[in-house]
Amino acid sequence: MTVKQLPLPELTKACGALGIGGVGLWREPVQAYGVDAAAQLVRDAGLTVTSLCRGGFLTATDPAERARALADNHTAIDEAAALGTDTLILVSGGLPPGSRDLPAARSRIADALSVLAPYAGERGVRLAIEPLHPMFASDRCVVSTLTQALDLAEHFPSDQVGVVVDTYHTWWDDTAPLAVARAGTSGRIHGFQLADWVTPLPAGVLNGRGRLGDGVVDLRAWRERVEAAGYGGPIEVELFNEGLWARDGVEVLRETVARYVEYVA
Amino acid sequence: MTVKQLPLPELTKACGALGIGGVGLWREPVQAYGVDAAAQLVRDAGLTVTSLCRGGFLTATDPAERARALADNHTAIDEAAALGTDTLILVSGGLPPGSRDLPAARSRIADALSVLAPYAGERGVRLAIEPLHPMFASDRCVVSTLTQALDLAEHFPSDQVGVVVDTYHTWWDDTAPLAVARAGTSGRIHGFQLADWVTPLPAGVLNGRGRLGDGVVDLRAWRERVEAAGYGGPIEVELFNEGLWARDGVEVLRETVARYVEYVA
Repeated sequence: MTVKQLPLPELTKACGALGIGGVGLWREPVQAYGVDAAAQLVRDAGLTVTSLCRGGFLTATDPAERARALADNHTAIDEAAALGTDTLILVSGGLPPGSRDLPAARSRIADALSVLAPYAGERGVRLAIEPLHPMFASDRCVVSTLTQALDLAEHFPSDQVGVVVDTYHTWWDDTAPLAVARAGTSGRIHGFQLADWVTPLPAGVLNGRGRLGDGVVDLRAWRERVEAAGYGGPIEVELFNEGLWARDGVEVLRETVARYVEYVA
Repeated sequence: MTVKQLPLPELTKACGALGIGGVGLWREPVQAYGVDAAAQLVRDAGLTVTSLCRGGFLTATDPAERARALADNHTAIDEAAALGTDTLILVSGGLPPGSRDLPAARSRIADALSVLAPYAGERGVRLAIEPLHPMFASDRCVVSTLTQALDLAEHFPSDQVGVVVDTYHTWWDDTAPLAVARAGTSGRIHGFQLADWVTPLPAGVLNGRGRLGDGVVDLRAWRERVEAAGYGGPIEVELFNEGLWARDGVEVLRETVARYVEYVA
């Protein structure tokens, strides 16, 4: 997503040239390219797919919409398996239109996970619940903290459901360090993503994520924290940023690697 | 602030005409009008001043800036006492330029409170720490949750330091109901403010608060929650909203009363 301007062939080529060993993919470009063709492309480039983004949106109350969401998540699990990644990232969904009931929405996510988790487990895919910043609680994700995500995940085996730690969403939360340790203890850190927090936020607040080092997040401390909790998996940089999308994608990748070395490694 | 287009004389007159018995004031218009003159104006209108907004911004590291902040807060306490309100609302402040250290910033707030709390107590003014939504954590307020605010407040007597419950800032937080009960038990709910949460957020995210009933917050449940915790003080409606400021202030006040009756009372 950081360089969504790059078509998959250019992306895989640039990753190889820059020594980036793995890449997190989004479903839309993969579907447009063809899931099997994308899997082949990534394999041929010697890359691993670190995660597939995203399933989720499991909060609907309307039965037909709910059934569509479950079917789409089954498809996403199949796509993850076909791409050879063990991690499907879930963005849980916001409040349905007209609803003011957060606990009920969170409960519907748990219900949906009880259907999806065994299906994922049978295919070697782990569902990774990503808490989103509380500013997205109404329209994207009623799961706002790592603690909430873990409360949901712990109903299921750790090789079926875990969490994603994303610095952009959790940097402000003084209970997050304890939740990271808790997630590590039960083997539930299924992903680790980096973005920096910069202000002022743009209208709609979706595409204002900061480049590594541009903001207030102590990214190195976060890496050390997840590693101290036992995480040894891939580290993804996920920047929704209009400015970066307007630039040359390969140049953005190169800059991101340099910033990773300077501010994280 | 909901009707900041109304000069103080028009505001007090409109409150009286609409049966609004109290008003929360901000320091800037009070200072412009003159503190003593404003106090007289409000008294003559038969209104109480529910709170003064705002002190705080206590996170600076620079010694001179820190001294200025403390002096300004002493002034704010004096102004609150002169206005006859027992509540000064504190917005704690964000990270200083270049800092990534949230715990250190929170610790400096505690240090400043140890200076300000006794001074306030001697003047019959309670400091009310207002946690702000986590989207303001870097640039306005490193205190993001009611639990954090209580952790700070509980170092001091409850008649010196407490918290403000503002639905706009806390509606998403599943730990907030427990914190409200905890604050009530120790007599630390020093204010209760209402605004609704609406999306999309505007650029800068400051002035996008929703009118009562326009958003996703169960405002009535929040009123019942603070009252169940023992709160019997004033209920303020605080809407930072460019659209409301562009309208006729008296009409906005009248509409707000009607919406309060429909969605809160």
